[in-house]
Amino acid sequence: MSYHKPEAKTIQELKDIAQLLRIHSITSTQASKSGHPTSCASIAEVMSVLFFNTMRLNVQSPRDPSNDRFVLSKGHAAPILYAAWAEAGLFPVEDLQNLRKLDSDLEGHPTPRLNFIDVGTGSLGQGVAVAAGMAYVGKNFDKSDYRTYVLVGDGESAEGSVWESLHFASHYKLDNLCVIFDVNRLGQSEPTSLQHQMDVYRQRLEAFGFNAIVVDGHDVEELCKAFYEAANTKIKPTAIIAKTFKGKYFPNIEDMENWHGKPLGDKAESVIKHLQGLIVNVDGHNLSIKSPVNTQAVPKINITNVKLSTPPSYKLGDQVATRLAYGTALVKIAENNNRVIALDGDTKNSTFSEKLKKAFPDRYIECFIAEQNLVGVAIGATCRDRTIAFASTFATFFTRAFDQIRMGAISQTNVNFVGSHCGVSIGEDGPSQMGLEDIAMFRTIPRSTVFYPSDAVSCERAVELAANAIGICFIRTSRPNTAVIYDNNETFEIGKAHIVKQSSKDQVLLIGAGVTLYECLKAATELEKEGIHARVLDPFTVKPIDRDLILKSGQTCGGRIVVVEDHYQQGGLGEAVLSALADKRDFVVKHLYVPTVPRSGPPTVLLDYFRISARHIVKAAQDILKL
Amino acid sequence: MSYHKPEAKTIQELKDIAQLLRIHSITSTQASKSGHPTSCASIAEVMSVLFFNTMRLNVQSPRDPSNDRFVLSKGHAAPILYAAWAEAGLFPVEDLQNLRKLDSDLEGHPTPRLNFIDVGTGSLGQGVAVAAGMAYVGKNFDKSDYRTYVLVGDGESAEGSVWESLHFASHYKLDNLCVIFDVNRLGQSEPTSLQHQMDVYRQRLEAFGFNAIVVDGHDVEELCKAFYEAANTKIKPTAIIAKTFKGKYFPNIEDMENWHGKPLGDKAESVIKHLQGLIVNVDGHNLSIKSPVNTQAVPKINITNVKLSTPPSYKLGDQVATRLAYGTALVKIAENNNRVIALDGDTKNSTFSEKLKKAFPDRYIECFIAEQNLVGVAIGATCRDRTIAFASTFATFFTRAFDQIRMGAISQTNVNFVGSHCGVSIGEDGPSQMGLEDIAMFRTIPRSTVFYPSDAVSCERAVELAANAIGICFIRTSRPNTAVIYDNNETFEIGKAHIVKQSSKDQVLLIGAGVTLYECLKAATELEKEGIHARVLDPFTVKPIDRDLILKSGQTCGGRIVVVEDHYQQGGLGEAVLSALADKRDFVVKHLYVPTVPRSGPPTVLLDYFRISARHIVKAAQDILKL
Repeated sequence: MSYHKPEAKTIQELKDIAQLLRIHSITSTQASKSGHPTSCASIAEVMSVLFFNTMRLNVQSPRDPSNDRFVLSKGHAAPILYAAWAEAGLFPVEDLQNLRKLDSDLEGHPTPRLNFIDVGTGSLGQGVAVAAGMAYVGKNFDKSDYRTYVLVGDGESAEGSVWESLHFASHYKLDNLCVIFDVNRLGQSEPTSLQHQMDVYRQRLEAFGFNAIVVDGHDVEELCKAFYEAANTKIKPTAIIAKTFKGKYFPNIEDMENWHGKPLGDKAESVIKHLQGLIVNVDGHNLSIKSPVNTQAVPKINITNVKLSTPPSYKLGDQVATRLAYGTALVKIAENNNRVIALDGDTKNSTFSEKLKKAFPDRYIECFIAEQNLVGVAIGATCRDRTIAFASTFATFFTRAFDQIRMGAISQTNVNFVGSHCGVSIGEDGPSQMGLEDIAMFRTIPRSTVFYPSDAVSCERAVELAANAIGICFIRTSRPNTAVIYDNNETFEIGKAHIVKQSSKDQVLLIGAGVTLYECLKAATELEKEGIHARVLDPFTVKPIDRDLILKSGQTCGGRIVVVEDHYQQGGLGEAVLSALADKRDFVVKHLYVPTVPRSGPPTVLLDYFRISARHIVKAAQDILKL
Repeated sequence: MSYHKPEAKTIQELKDIAQLLRIHSITSTQASKSGHPTSCASIAEVMSVLFFNTMRLNVQSPRDPSNDRFVLSKGHAAPILYAAWAEAGLFPVEDLQNLRKLDSDLEGHPTPRLNFIDVGTGSLGQGVAVAAGMAYVGKNFDKSDYRTYVLVGDGESAEGSVWESLHFASHYKLDNLCVIFDVNRLGQSEPTSLQHQMDVYRQRLEAFGFNAIVVDGHDVEELCKAFYEAANTKIKPTAIIAKTFKGKYFPNIEDMENWHGKPLGDKAESVIKHLQGLIVNVDGHNLSIKSPVNTQAVPKINITNVKLSTPPSYKLGDQVATRLAYGTALVKIAENNNRVIALDGDTKNSTFSEKLKKAFPDRYIECFIAEQNLVGVAIGATCRDRTIAFASTFATFFTRAFDQIRMGAISQTNVNFVGSHCGVSIGEDGPSQMGLEDIAMFRTIPRSTVFYPSDAVSCERAVELAANAIGICFIRTSRPNTAVIYDNNETFEIGKAHIVKQSSKDQVLLIGAGVTLYECLKAATELEKEGIHARVLDPFTVKPIDRDLILKSGQTCGGRIVVVEDHYQQGGLGEAVLSALADKRDFVVKHLYVPTVPRSGPPTVLLDYFRISARHIVKAAQDILKL
């Protein structure tokens, strides 16, 4: 199959559409009195060619799984993306005037509140990872024809996350992925570091394993040809490096500084007039969007009602690390549903995601040591409900991808994150490897669920619940072995705590999770020797926290609560409990936590050294009884 | 000056030292029963040549500013770094046997608890940024001869942060920087994605602007020559890409999988015997470390007792955004101390760090859109107290660098971070640009100070205080203008709140900061009309929070407190207040916060829509009086 360039008439129509999209970008940002029209102008021809010549879309069903995917990584160019979909016929062009209004979903940056957007963008440098995740699924799981396009700004290509993802895409030979670089030379506050050094971009992309094509980004014909080449290049993904100008075709604004993120104001009228003068077919275009060609249909799948293939099977008292139970449960849900996948960043033999790789090698994605890409690929892989993804690494290394996780909430993703090696209980490796802020981080994520299972039985159920939950889930697993304390048939629910020790005479409520739950149990036994009766509560989920049971149990215990966690003071289990009690008087809480940057040492010694061991809980309980 | 290779005797001694370092790496990890001897073995020749041939160090004064710098980015190879310093004579070789013990600072990964370590490493991919910051200071501020070396593992080179920093280093022509890549082929859980494709590494590094030299990393002669070339290459930084083998010279372990992070156990004895057999000069070496050559002496500087050059100068009621006051104050402290520098990620016209660039162009470092590198460079720039650094971007984009900031605490850094555009009050740009989890993030950092100034006067003082504070500081600035409420001569202290409205009849305490402080003031005025008297408190710092004044004021107000913040519920001002009250009964707190992913809209409309406006505070105060 050799390339036939479009007819002259089509070429002219594509040019005209580009100008029309520019005009919409100006008028909509005039209406909103804010926005980025010059950042739209540099990609007008790219958008015109992509939507009206290259991509295959069922326009009226924008999330049809057989559609090509498009991710606007430079999300601040949202107005022209909205304009393209409006011109394509999805919604009335007049709606574009509602840009950035409170009652419109045409927000300043794209979010999936709009049915034609898969993920939120606007924090730069994240689109390639998401697109790579979509392309990986298309090639390896759906095994279908749809292609994935992602448009990246030159400014954002300074983000290292972009290069993680480019490396990932070439390593996995994602030839169904096309990355377009909009090299418009200007950043927000000054020219980009590489300006129009197109050769440097080409060298870097070739070195990163891409078929790299430099084009004049305002030449519709060149773009048509480049996208054709991209679609017909095998083994390698393609990068189309478009030399463009910010504010292209805006007289006295094009290629000038100090025009980032500003509507054109009193210059708008004359610029629009100029653009209208460039349109040849003033009666509009006749181009229609091509429909998907399904030589290989996208399979119908069901990712609901996922179950463990077999229930937990432990003996009370068995010593099993929750990280190991995670691996076991992951395989069980993968046996139950063939769209369960796992991703890891070269820690699979520590997190035990390797169990899934061993059982179902094709459903494991090794992301190597690049956590931002790991998270982005997971988010992309779950778009349009194509997979149920579990992404794992050490809990603390998810801090590397906090921005991606934050954007994941805006993207309404359902990705499940599993962080092992939490707290000082990992021991000798020292503070750089200890998750001590991970609960705080994941609690801030809107609609998130934060599981902190303490034994193998509850951990398996956490995995099962996470697989079915809406929103981001985080499961915090521990490195050391801990005793199985629940029956195999115990039931677990999100937001439901469990009382693991109680009597009718309880005077103080101890709350711990993971290793500290066991310290609470030990402390309760010690306290009993002194005639002090303590109730012990396992929260199971830190978010949502079981407010009702904590209130009820706390009241029964005279409002005296000790919370102890292998985490820093801020934002963890302790503050979750305090938030639950905020509007109640008559509670007093002693909070034990890791008070400073810890250090290397044996796990049990560190628990004591950093004041979260049974001995310190006993002391706190004694003290609280004096208050 | 042309290269003369070392004498044969020296070459042999360097080889012998490499084997000695291998032996120390084995014996110390045998003693600790954990650690990464095979990851040490691959860099033994690099370490031997660097320390005993290339670097210039006053060994007994490891933080002498004229010394060459060395950063071990692959921190898990700590045992061989410790061994090198011990062999260099800094401390007794026998101490190496205390590796990873609680009472030893020879931790699992390096931290500056050791006097020969500048920064904590162990979270991978962060060393190049730090080293680039050191090299930038050496070249541009100290203008001295010292060179900076950073050793990167091949596994960690998948981290995008590495490529951000490589780009930064070549952009700023840091020819005093040398990055060594230890390409030992094996990651933690499987081979790296590029294994021994040395040409791919070379192409990538050349494309990123480096003088790239591929060497046999176990050939002492080649290494000596490559380091000489690096030191004599101008305009470009050099990358030495060393082809190595994990576990080199460990029979039946070398280049084999499943030996990551494991001491050699019962194989140790035979391996040590084998290594001893490879040592030629069995009576030890005579090599000594070269001292620094100060053709340009490192200037003596003083970074203490920094003051605003002139006090704040506003009129009560002036409308000034705190982000603008930040820029003003930054220039004032820069006028007072010539080691005050600013860094930004292409948002300087939004954060107002551009004011420093305009006043002192040489003391501004543009880091473009690469926040991980921005933070790493700032940390590097402040090492050995060479500068006082202020790094700014939108508050939410610091989430991109949470891992770097977390490691910054382990590194005992004093970098100041300034995050603008917090909360829904930024308006139309939408949720991707809104800082709603930044307080939670910075509160988790050990020893951090979190400033949240509400007006221009307090913001200027926050900047002055931050410049002198120990530990990480975060200053949260706001986009909208807010009224000046403090006299220019008002005093501010870390951990001291201010009462901004009170009467003898107060029944409820309102706590707000930034835009919500003004909503509290409005609410108090409204409440007064109904005969409800409210006291209003400005915390100034969220961490440490002024527990005493909150307790005292809260008690005066009947234990009734309303906290309102432009931030998510978790980990912010509200939970800081709850933590302060944890062990007191008789308080009841209503907490108003942004309850969900927000959306685009006008700032004041959003404050009301997301329930943190005066109207909602009035309602909360009324409700709390009924409790």
